[in-house]
Amino acid sequence: MGVGDVSKRILLGRKLRSAQLGETLLPKRIALPVFASDALSSVAYAPDEVFIMLAVAGVTQYVWSWKIAIAVALVMAAVIASYRQTVHAYPSGGGDYEVAKVNLGRNAGITVGSALLVDYVLTVAVSISSGSQYAAAAIPALQHHEVTVATVAVVLLMAVNLRGIRESGRVFAVPTYLFMFAIFVMCGFGFVELAFGTLPQVESADLDITPEPGWDEPLTTFGLMILLARAFSSGCAALTGVEAISNGVPAFRRPKSRNAATTLLLLGLIAITMIVSVIVLAKQMGIRYVDPHHLDRLTRDGEPVGPGYDQHTVIAQIARAVFHDFSPGFYFTVTVTGIILVLAANTAFNGFPVLGSILAKDGLAPRALGARGDRLAYSNGIVFLAVMAIALIWIFDAQTTRLIQLYIVGVFVSFNLSQLGMIRHWTRALQTERDPAQRRRMVRARVINAIGLGFTAVVLVVVLLTKFTQGAWITVLAMALFFTVMRAIRAHYESVEAELAADEEDKVLPTRVHAIVLVSKLHKPTLRALAFAKATRPNALEGVYVSVDDAETDRLLAEWDQRNTGVPLRVLHSPYREVVKPIVEYAAAIRRANPRGVVAVYIPEYVVGRWWEQLLHNQTALRLKGRLLFSPGVMVISVPFQLRSSEIARERGEREESRVRPGDLRRGRVAERSGRKPQP
Amino acid sequence: MGVGDVSKRILLGRKLRSAQLGETLLPKRIALPVFASDALSSVAYAPDEVFIMLAVAGVTQYVWSWKIAIAVALVMAAVIASYRQTVHAYPSGGGDYEVAKVNLGRNAGITVGSALLVDYVLTVAVSISSGSQYAAAAIPALQHHEVTVATVAVVLLMAVNLRGIRESGRVFAVPTYLFMFAIFVMCGFGFVELAFGTLPQVESADLDITPEPGWDEPLTTFGLMILLARAFSSGCAALTGVEAISNGVPAFRRPKSRNAATTLLLLGLIAITMIVSVIVLAKQMGIRYVDPHHLDRLTRDGEPVGPGYDQHTVIAQIARAVFHDFSPGFYFTVTVTGIILVLAANTAFNGFPVLGSILAKDGLAPRALGARGDRLAYSNGIVFLAVMAIALIWIFDAQTTRLIQLYIVGVFVSFNLSQLGMIRHWTRALQTERDPAQRRRMVRARVINAIGLGFTAVVLVVVLLTKFTQGAWITVLAMALFFTVMRAIRAHYESVEAELAADEEDKVLPTRVHAIVLVSKLHKPTLRALAFAKATRPNALEGVYVSVDDAETDRLLAEWDQRNTGVPLRVLHSPYREVVKPIVEYAAAIRRANPRGVVAVYIPEYVVGRWWEQLLHNQTALRLKGRLLFSPGVMVISVPFQLRSSEIARERGEREESRVRPGDLRRGRVAERSGRKPQP
Repeated sequence: MGVGDVSKRILLGRKLRSAQLGETLLPKRIALPVFASDALSSVAYAPDEVFIMLAVAGVTQYVWSWKIAIAVALVMAAVIASYRQTVHAYPSGGGDYEVAKVNLGRNAGITVGSALLVDYVLTVAVSISSGSQYAAAAIPALQHHEVTVATVAVVLLMAVNLRGIRESGRVFAVPTYLFMFAIFVMCGFGFVELAFGTLPQVESADLDITPEPGWDEPLTTFGLMILLARAFSSGCAALTGVEAISNGVPAFRRPKSRNAATTLLLLGLIAITMIVSVIVLAKQMGIRYVDPHHLDRLTRDGEPVGPGYDQHTVIAQIARAVFHDFSPGFYFTVTVTGIILVLAANTAFNGFPVLGSILAKDGLAPRALGARGDRLAYSNGIVFLAVMAIALIWIFDAQTTRLIQLYIVGVFVSFNLSQLGMIRHWTRALQTERDPAQRRRMVRARVINAIGLGFTAVVLVVVLLTKFTQGAWITVLAMALFFTVMRAIRAHYESVEAELAADEEDKVLPTRVHAIVLVSKLHKPTLRALAFAKATRPNALEGVYVSVDDAETDRLLAEWDQRNTGVPLRVLHSPYREVVKPIVEYAAAIRRANPRGVVAVYIPEYVVGRWWEQLLHNQTALRLKGRLLFSPGVMVISVPFQLRSSEIARERGEREESRVRPGDLRRGRVAERSGRKPQP
Repeated sequence: MGVGDVSKRILLGRKLRSAQLGETLLPKRIALPVFASDALSSVAYAPDEVFIMLAVAGVTQYVWSWKIAIAVALVMAAVIASYRQTVHAYPSGGGDYEVAKVNLGRNAGITVGSALLVDYVLTVAVSISSGSQYAAAAIPALQHHEVTVATVAVVLLMAVNLRGIRESGRVFAVPTYLFMFAIFVMCGFGFVELAFGTLPQVESADLDITPEPGWDEPLTTFGLMILLARAFSSGCAALTGVEAISNGVPAFRRPKSRNAATTLLLLGLIAITMIVSVIVLAKQMGIRYVDPHHLDRLTRDGEPVGPGYDQHTVIAQIARAVFHDFSPGFYFTVTVTGIILVLAANTAFNGFPVLGSILAKDGLAPRALGARGDRLAYSNGIVFLAVMAIALIWIFDAQTTRLIQLYIVGVFVSFNLSQLGMIRHWTRALQTERDPAQRRRMVRARVINAIGLGFTAVVLVVVLLTKFTQGAWITVLAMALFFTVMRAIRAHYESVEAELAADEEDKVLPTRVHAIVLVSKLHKPTLRALAFAKATRPNALEGVYVSVDDAETDRLLAEWDQRNTGVPLRVLHSPYREVVKPIVEYAAAIRRANPRGVVAVYIPEYVVGRWWEQLLHNQTALRLKGRLLFSPGVMVISVPFQLRSSEIARERGEREESRVRPGDLRRGRVAERSGRKPQP
């Protein structure tokens, strides 16, 4: 069998696998939970934030709650409609980043990239903080230990992702559908009871809320506007995560774009229904909810409830009241909510490598991130995410309310640039499109994106105005930092590329090859290196031995003669026991003597399998290779000799290569663990 | 100029330097302080330990102090006389290790090696702990912060040695001579005053010592024997470090052995004079000195002095009394004592790499330790020393008294094995020697070593009996650990050597060389790699490109054709964006198709200079090289392309190579910084 056949089989093998890929892609019913867990999980904290903000001016302002819910729902509808256009126009999965880069230029792309990086960190911090509050609602012993719970959760997520867990559609599907089920059942029950007039009150209904200083009634019109703007912008936390589907189009089954758009529509309907239902129900059930740092503003009969009061999340309070005589219902709701929040955080761990590889492809991140399987790069990214998230959790005391202030800016920066990019996209497309039906569709799409831009621009302005001093400045600063780093990386790659651009001179062949084989002993690895070196038929070939001990040198010389290798052995004396320097200098001297030639340094290398064996071998070879790289006109040839123990490491390496990496699923890369295993 | 000339010049250059080595060797007046600082510094703590041990049974037992001093002096004289024989018989500087290995076999050698390793750690811990007590005597603010002072000192020593300080003879000479001067002046003054009957009392003279429970007078004979044995074995701490000269013979000027023997004699005379003088004077001046952990046993008029009492070291107390109306004398004495203790600790940092390289040469330590310039190995050793010493300082609360219990075992294990080895050495030599004068000399030397063995064996038994439960068991355990590790390393190297032993089959040449050049882009590095690969005239040559993106692949193929490189380009499709795996599989397939051939994989490599640039390049190349090493019949050729920034790293590398390493001086390797610089 010739090399050609073998390589063709490899190629065909690959092609087959590539063709099979379709079978492993996600159907809508699996794609929805995989990509929607982040967006849906925000139902767990967005209503709370609305009530907290309104509570600033006392409980009477809760009358605005359902209007704010409607406003948030409107924005979400506009954004979903916009992204349905994106999904059709950019099916490659670059999402906001690609839209901004292609239509608005590189800097807009980098800005979106920075915003997304910040978002991933905040997704982890916010979701896990909120999740730890749900855990505390279900398990009273965890109360007041939310920071510890959240930290442990992030560390566990990190460990699981470092280990390389299969991001399975099933793992997402079951809890996400259970979460939808729980929320819909809870709200359904609630509305039925509301219709029958038997709706119970939540546990905090008998409390009153002291307005914050300066927010006593009656509010001025301006004051009211500020209050509503703040409540609205906090409520927009519900929109975080809706962009995920636009990044994941390649993972959908064909027709990818249409399926993604349908899934997006479904996601929008579900999310809007949930958020409006929860807010309306909570208001009807007399919720009283304040910033957990200002629990003393909650009063019962004019007296503060004191530090002993445990304020439970809005969904927990509703669930407790609705399922008042069926406590499994309460525990079920709270548990699945906690699980979906953890899944949402895991989303960030899976999305981060995908974003990294997209940025790497454009030279904005280390190129190694672009290739699959660079475990080190993956690991560093995952640890980075976890450390940043834990830092935020500690700084902000695992208080979702305070983290939310940082969260929404990044999300809406990418929303805005993405919508703006889409408008530009359609405008460009209209310049060349002649088919009237297509043109109509494009014009309609442009209108939808313009409406989306209108809404998201207003939200961004409101968010910046109301939240900048509350913490959004941190996000802006972090984005500026990421922006600068990415620009610097890009500039570096460009300057290297310019330095490396090929010109005609580079085709000149070296006139001669002078090969030297490093000899430390006359054993199998050395003999193999000599044989390999001879096989390349260099113009000159010699063994080189660094002598640090006369007796040993004599022994080697005798053995060399006796072996009759046919290769001369040059001995470099090194009275100071240096090994690297004499060789580097010798190679440089050969090169100087023949500047148009090339020096080929053959290094026999032991290949061992255990980490401690590594410490015992090859250290000098490693150091030598590192130094020789700096000598012009020298190439370094490793001639490996596999010791028996190397088998261990080879197998480990193969396991490593075939291991599932975070983000594989959302690139459509991994077969679901199912009966239909892809054929090898 | 041909290659031959160039290489000859390099060789001659080397030889010249080698010949000049004599000029840089140490004269006796410099060698004495370099090698004696460790031994002399023990005068700073050995007397204290004698008094502490005697104080266990109350102050009346101090009458034994000068007799114990004499006993210690006798042992020291015997050991010094023994080592003078070693220095003559083994001028290569292997010291105790070599003597034991050559005469008693490998296991004895390994035992001595383990003992020395443990000793280095303890030298640092003991010297620095004692030094911090002197610092506290001079600067009252440091009192009760000895652990912190000692830790900071070890960290500083570590940093200085990691940085690579020139271990200069001058740095040792000045403080060591000042220390001798200070001690001799102090004792001289003291004895003059003693003669005139005006000897003042030390600050603790008016105190009384309560015996420890069970040690109240009258002591039984057996009790007294135990007391004296413990005091004597503690006093033997004065002997630590006398073996240093026998490890440093190669650093002496010619005639090396005679000069070393003379220096050893001088060292012995000085050390014995000092230790006896200090103990006798302290006794005469009414010293009261107890374990710093039992300060409550010091009483004044029947009342314990309480925790407010600061117990100063013996030398500090003598100096304060002798120089009572001349405080600079006190401060000078205490300061130079502190400095010499730090120098003694530094000795360990310098001796450690020397021992490492000797052990490495015998395959008992990672081979990389054997070559000069392996910065990583040096650094790891230095950090290891420092961390272990700090751990001991913390565990034992920087109390010299408690660390001494661990110290002496290791020293006397190597003393014993070394003397035993010497006896064996002379016995063997006598079997062949016929010259009567030589024979007489050998018999005399054997008697001296036998006396030495007698003394050191008694001390070892006494030390083991009196100190095993006090902490010596830790030393024994640590030695056993090092012993096991060294045996395991040796066993590993031997099994590898057996596996690698050359046989006739290994000379068979590969039938063909199939070269593949990895192509990522068509730029200078790739073109250079192609040119180099062509120059080696392989049987088959092709470029290999891993395609992860069709558009990019088409662009490259077009460029490839246009360039007309004359080399076919093979495209490996990788739908999953893997880069490493397709290449490894392709190389393996080529090899399988032609099992007697060789696959040469050329990897163009960027060489950059800054660490963050490293992160941006070559990650995939690195990973690929790591994986290809495990494929039999594949050699990996790095074709470096030096970017402009690589200049930075090249210069750093050269600075690194020429940097002074710890231990260089004691291998006779570094020229003193003097007017006569060695010619290049």
